[in-house]
Amino acid sequence: MSMATPLVRIVMGSDSDLPVMKDAAAVLADFGIAYHMTVLSAHRTPARLIGYVQEGEASGTKVFIAAAGGAAHLAGVVAAHTTLPVIGVPILGKSTDGLDSLLSTVQMPPGVPVATVAINGAKNAGILAAQIIGATDPEVRKKIAKHKEKIAKDVLAKAQKLEEIGYEEYLKKHE
Amino acid sequence: MSMATPLVRIVMGSDSDLPVMKDAAAVLADFGIAYHMTVLSAHRTPARLIGYVQEGEASGTKVFIAAAGGAAHLAGVVAAHTTLPVIGVPILGKSTDGLDSLLSTVQMPPGVPVATVAINGAKNAGILAAQIIGATDPEVRKKIAKHKEKIAKDVLAKAQKLEEIGYEEYLKKHE
Amino acid sequence: MSMATPLVRIVMGSDSDLPVMKDAAAVLADFGIAYHMTVLSAHRTPARLIGYVQEGEASGTKVFIAAAGGAAHLAGVVAAHTTLPVIGVPILGKSTDGLDSLLSTVQMPPGVPVATVAINGAKNAGILAAQIIGATDPEVRKKIAKHKEKIAKDVLAKAQKLEEIGYEEYLKKHE
Amino acid sequence: MSMATPLVRIVMGSDSDLPVMKDAAAVLADFGIAYHMTVLSAHRTPARLIGYVQEGEASGTKVFIAAAGGAAHLAGVVAAHTTLPVIGVPILGKSTDGLDSLLSTVQMPPGVPVATVAINGAKNAGILAAQIIGATDPEVRKKIAKHKEKIAKDVLAKAQKLEEIGYEEYLKKHE
Amino acid sequence: MSMATPLVRIVMGSDSDLPVMKDAAAVLADFGIAYHMTVLSAHRTPARLIGYVQEGEASGTKVFIAAAGGAAHLAGVVAAHTTLPVIGVPILGKSTDGLDSLLSTVQMPPGVPVATVAINGAKNAGILAAQIIGATDPEVRKKIAKHKEKIAKDVLAKAQKLEEIGYEEYLKKHE
Amino acid sequence: MSMATPLVRIVMGSDSDLPVMKDAAAVLADFGIAYHMTVLSAHRTPARLIGYVQEGEASGTKVFIAAAGGAAHLAGVVAAHTTLPVIGVPILGKSTDGLDSLLSTVQMPPGVPVATVAINGAKNAGILAAQIIGATDPEVRKKIAKHKEKIAKDVLAKAQKLEEIGYEEYLKKHE
Amino acid sequence: MSMATPLVRIVMGSDSDLPVMKDAAAVLADFGIAYHMTVLSAHRTPARLIGYVQEGEASGTKVFIAAAGGAAHLAGVVAAHTTLPVIGVPILGKSTDGLDSLLSTVQMPPGVPVATVAINGAKNAGILAAQIIGATDPEVRKKIAKHKEKIAKDVLAKAQKLEEIGYEEYLKKHE
Amino acid sequence: MSMATPLVRIVMGSDSDLPVMKDAAAVLADFGIAYHMTVLSAHRTPARLIGYVQEGEASGTKVFIAAAGGAAHLAGVVAAHTTLPVIGVPILGKSTDGLDSLLSTVQMPPGVPVATVAINGAKNAGILAAQIIGATDPEVRKKIAKHKEKIAKDVLAKAQKLEEIGYEEYLKKHE
Repeated sequence: MSMATPLVRIVMGSDSDLPVMKDAAAVLADFGIAYHMTVLSAHRTPARLIGYVQEGEASGTKVFIAAAGGAAHLAGVVAAHTTLPVIGVPILGKSTDGLDSLLSTVQMPPGVPVATVAINGAKNAGILAAQIIGATDPEVRKKIAKHKEKIAKDVLAKAQKLEEIGYEEYLKKHE
Repeated sequence: MSMATPLVRIVMGSDSDLPVMKDAAAVLADFGIAYHMTVLSAHRTPARLIGYVQEGEASGTKVFIAAAGGAAHLAGVVAAHTTLPVIGVPILGKSTDGLDSLLSTVQMPPGVPVATVAINGAKNAGILAAQIIGATDPEVRKKIAKHKEKIAKDVLAKAQKLEEIGYEEYLKKHE
Repeated sequence: MSMATPLVRIVMGSDSDLPVMKDAAAVLADFGIAYHMTVLSAHRTPARLIGYVQEGEASGTKVFIAAAGGAAHLAGVVAAHTTLPVIGVPILGKSTDGLDSLLSTVQMPPGVPVATVAINGAKNAGILAAQIIGATDPEVRKKIAKHKEKIAKDVLAKAQKLEEIGYEEYLKKHE
Repeated sequence: MSMATPLVRIVMGSDSDLPVMKDAAAVLADFGIAYHMTVLSAHRTPARLIGYVQEGEASGTKVFIAAAGGAAHLAGVVAAHTTLPVIGVPILGKSTDGLDSLLSTVQMPPGVPVATVAINGAKNAGILAAQIIGATDPEVRKKIAKHKEKIAKDVLAKAQKLEEIGYEEYLKKHE
Repeated sequence: MSMATPLVRIVMGSDSDLPVMKDAAAVLADFGIAYHMTVLSAHRTPARLIGYVQEGEASGTKVFIAAAGGAAHLAGVVAAHTTLPVIGVPILGKSTDGLDSLLSTVQMPPGVPVATVAINGAKNAGILAAQIIGATDPEVRKKIAKHKEKIAKDVLAKAQKLEEIGYEEYLKKHE
Repeated sequence: MSMATPLVRIVMGSDSDLPVMKDAAAVLADFGIAYHMTVLSAHRTPARLIGYVQEGEASGTKVFIAAAGGAAHLAGVVAAHTTLPVIGVPILGKSTDGLDSLLSTVQMPPGVPVATVAINGAKNAGILAAQIIGATDPEVRKKIAKHKEKIAKDVLAKAQKLEEIGYEEYLKKHE
Repeated sequence: MSMATPLVRIVMGSDSDLPVMKDAAAVLADFGIAYHMTVLSAHRTPARLIGYVQEGEASGTKVFIAAAGGAAHLAGVVAAHTTLPVIGVPILGKSTDGLDSLLSTVQMPPGVPVATVAINGAKNAGILAAQIIGATDPEVRKKIAKHKEKIAKDVLAKAQKLEEIGYEEYLKKHE
Repeated sequence: MSMATPLVRIVMGSDSDLPVMKDAAAVLADFGIAYHMTVLSAHRTPARLIGYVQEGEASGTKVFIAAAGGAAHLAGVVAAHTTLPVIGVPILGKSTDGLDSLLSTVQMPPGVPVATVAINGAKNAGILAAQIIGATDPEVRKKIAKHKEKIAKDVLAKAQKLEEIGYEEYLKKHE
């Protein structure tokens, strides 16, 4: 957890989502954006969840990230209680191959949007939160631009290597 | 609305669900079970929804019926705030052919079940509510048994007619 | 198996469903609700299945739980032979990622509802059965309320721990 | 209905399936195969359905055709009560675009097959019934062969016409 | 391979389907029904496949069983070249969770039915073939009836055991 | 089009998306947020699309909204060329019931998120854009709060009316 | 039909596909590429279909286009009998929203590819055929380039108009 | 990588696609067709990707192969920048069982086709590229014909072996 006033609050429906959601925290830390992360359930701790959202609203949070699987109501319930942007991360479960989490996160009714990223797209949730903050913070935006350059360079380095050594060698080195 | 203390509370996320959900009300009225029906949204009126559930708990409600489409969180949010059984009706929307409503109603996490019926299955929601009440009320159960007999007779009457007049005649009479 | 008159009868289509369905039995045992559990198939032992349902009706059963996979007809066939509430548990199979079991359990025609829970949602089937009994039994309802508190506390304890030790430590301890 | 001992028994879950299922009857009539057709529900008239199957077994029926929509259990329940081949016709309903009917008809457990045809494939159900009878009846098989020739000729006639007059003219004539 | 004139011809699109399809052969052998089994592809060996079907027609085959995965055209191509009943077995592949194999086997156009069984439903394909033969062969039908009794007994034995020893013991013995 | 420097740029892949996307423009106009809206295709006018994104970046745009159907690449291509947040609106097409548009908008790879709203969720795209701007603009946030209150009041008014006049009257008035 | 030696052969499984497939013919005519178009079924006229493919191979055809719905085997059967590239057009049918046609066209086994375009993507099938011919014919490639420019200009003209007159006016003019 | 002017350019969105895509390269090498293969992302290296396509156009490339997973925009973006045929390979990802990759590759809008092969169908992408080149190069076409014969022989050899030794032996030898 970072110590500054958290600009982003990350909440997940179960601690079993943490191995996925840690990537959202990590990318925010990389960008130097203070965040707070916890576990709260729309169905098991609804009152505490609403409290958590209201504390965020009151203390300078700019963006919420909410992750859940199955009948994934968490992001929608957060969105119901705030005027801040809410990013939803559908978590892949054990049946329907992620369609349940995706559809119950993204198909929100008019008036209460959830900014949904890919199934298990925790890293992108962190980047999107940074982009939202970066829309009015040039420092953050510069960091996103650098990250964009970095991932481009990574691809180009792989391209160069593959072109140089051929795919047999490449596959050997990466197995 | 019936005047006795309502045993069943029917809530739907939008008044556009009413042409479907009226069938739940009608079947309860047929069974002589007092109900209350209203429109409340998990995302647009979350506080009022919780209040409605709590009023129900306090005033003798035995079963909730909750109907919603798309990212259908309504039944789940009701279930989060009560220990009474909650019946969910997934409402068919304009995309994904009902899978969104169905999956976001039925795929609830351990601890907070929603008794889900078919997509647009409002009549069955009413019957299920009656069955739940009937589990300890022999009068209601007798009425369900009669209804079961009636729908069986309807099928058998159709069978007899089809067998007597043949399908060409049958189709002419029912077009 | 509990010794008192069983209030809940749990039936599954195959003993391969037992590793999932044991959770329904366990939660009923936790709530002190007498149950009976067996294996019967809608397709392989239809006559015995009907007998089992009728014995239940005659001996004070309040709720049926039926679990099956694939073309999951079991809950529907139970529902055809009783006026009591029937809870359906779609069991995840080896293809279509659970959609077959879910759709063939939940999409029941008007007149014969099945209260469907999540794919492999055995624990919730047990809780829903308890909620149905609890609708008229304050003792059971108190136990459900306590269970609700317990799972809320569990979430809050995890939240506190995660907030205290951070996600790296948390993940290390739970791997 | 034909007057000879029916070799094929056609049963559908609702008379709303008749506009589809009449094609099965029509093709059997074309092939000169005696059939009997009725409406019976696995869920609403289970006892009468079993009786109908047993009467068929006792009176020389060779094949059953069973058609239903939604949680389509009809064909499976017929198959549970006979050693004769059972053809299932999944009927297209108002949600999930036919997947519910198809999956709950075809995904039968080991031991109890249902010979499933296409969604709304009533004509093919009739042809398949004829093929089953034709496997040991050369007269019927000759008729199927003729029908096969006829539909081939129809395609070839259309091909010739399209090639002669071009698609603009062809479309004008068939609108 | 059995030595008598084969009444059933089993063809699969790839030898990778054999671990599934061996169950069709085994059940036919159990019923004492002579069969022939081979590997032929609708796309890789189309001429040989047509020859195989025609040899079957000429030599007393009563039923074809065709199994394939992905764009599963095998059963349809067999059906295009025979007036005998064709049973299709959709084989589960590595993507779309079996929907590709199922839909491309079952959704046949009017005039050319394929009697489709469950995804990977090889055993049921064998039983269905026996049922088709049994429709006019009382000896085979008796064997199917015995098999039906046997699988019922198996279920009832499991039921008895589970009821006697409880689920904890049962699960221990079957792990 | 509003005259001030547009804070939001709305781009759609085809003018056939305009009947849906006009709702995004309308809600931004309601909130007094200047926007620019046009038609550009990722596949038919890729260079102009990139130019449009770069002009936006250079001239003070804070958020992009991109709407497309089918293989909906538009939002992803916009996101590839900016560090600003990009909202994707999947447009319902004529097949696969919206799944194609949804999946090709939301399932973005790590590094390049698209904030996806519901299928045809144009109004929510506008609100989400406002929320992103409102995260650092208290005036906009107040307007969103008012809008939230308004839609809550609308629901409550409907609830009151339905409770007062009953569903038969209500349905008559709204047909 | 054009009179020169046809470079492209278009075959569809039913004349009901013609209202879709005429667009493939029209685009080839626009590009000045001679084509031949007919109706032939993989299941109803398999021998004639093979003949048609072999005639094409022998007479200078460069590309086949095959269109079918449901269990769409047509393109696969064409591909089984030629070494030329085969383009498949999945035709939208009345159930499963096009998934059946798409999956049974595209999911071909190793060794026998079908170049699949979008559901009902007849125009793109024509363009793809032209691109294949254009790969070695600069004249055709120039025409494709011009077509690409034209559709880009169309989009840009719409963009300009929408930006000039605003969406209210634009929608009025296009209704 | 082959040394002659590459006729085929293979591009994949991530080096994690290489274990699948190596099969496209291998089959082209088998056919003696020079190719170039690299890693480039539509979202992470859009400018370099466009450059790669333009270099291909300028230097004699005849066909592009583009492979990507998830929101698979790569093939579409390549197609947007060339008049040459583009083959798309949808790569199986970790959710939605390949539907996301397939639909976002194949459902291209009119004017910009992508010749889509099966999910993970890399080998077929290579063969299709060869077929496109072979349409005007008799030497290549001969090689494709030989390959077609070879895979037919492989199937026939397996058929012979299975028929000779029976399935028990066959399965033992291939486990």
